[in-house]
Amino acid sequence: MNLDFGKLGGLVTAVIQDYATGRVLMVGFMNEEAFRKTVETGFATFFSRSRNKLWLKGETSGHRLAVKEISTDCDQDALLVRVEALGPGVCHNGYQSCFYRRLSHGEWIESEPRAYDPETVYGSTG
Amino acid sequence: MNLDFGKLGGLVTAVIQDYATGRVLMVGFMNEEAFRKTVETGFATFFSRSRNKLWLKGETSGHRLAVKEISTDCDQDALLVRVEALGPGVCHNGYQSCFYRRLSHGEWIESEPRAYDPETVYGSTG
Repeated sequence: MNLDFGKLGGLVTAVIQDYATGRVLMVGFMNEEAFRKTVETGFATFFSRSRNKLWLKGETSGHRLAVKEISTDCDQDALLVRVEALGPGVCHNGYQSCFYRRLSHGEWIESEPRAYDPETVYGSTG
Repeated sequence: MNLDFGKLGGLVTAVIQDYATGRVLMVGFMNEEAFRKTVETGFATFFSRSRNKLWLKGETSGHRLAVKEISTDCDQDALLVRVEALGPGVCHNGYQSCFYRRLSHGEWIESEPRAYDPETVYGSTG
């Protein structure tokens, strides 16, 4: 299971894709331990660069990502993780996908409605 | 079109997805100039970390990526670029997608045949 963690300071890029619909849901980063936990537990676990620690996706919201298949790329420095997303959305802003804004005539525009209210899931701080 | 280039030393992650099939084809990085060129020309342009310069995907092979739609994520530090891939494959190893190896019982196994012969496209060095 060798991966190249050297190019990004101990991390590989992890693209999360919905197994059923093919929608790209989010992009995160995994260090070696996060990758190992993802494989062992079957739930996507990332390394949070802002909090500098492992982050089981859904640990607060319950919206975990159940792993269906993991692929790596030619350089072995990126992962494609196909998942079943538990819950209405993976984005902490309340959307199904973190990619909810589309470029249109030089502006980012929201291209879909919220899937849930983030205040009720994450509390009043958003 | 503000993006957060600060977290990865001047780069954002760019996930390339086939517009028609939904398949994730590759992951690259864009600096601000590569992003601007991608938007202006309609063909995906990356920043090559190994060669330290802009890289028009397909400049050698002719296998360009015609941009259909660009989205950004909640943190504005990643892009999802949906494309029409011109040519049989985006991977310089000869596969349709760079993600041609799947994790199976702790091993990466090739999960598809080559789509073209890289020697005839890139020359004898592969």
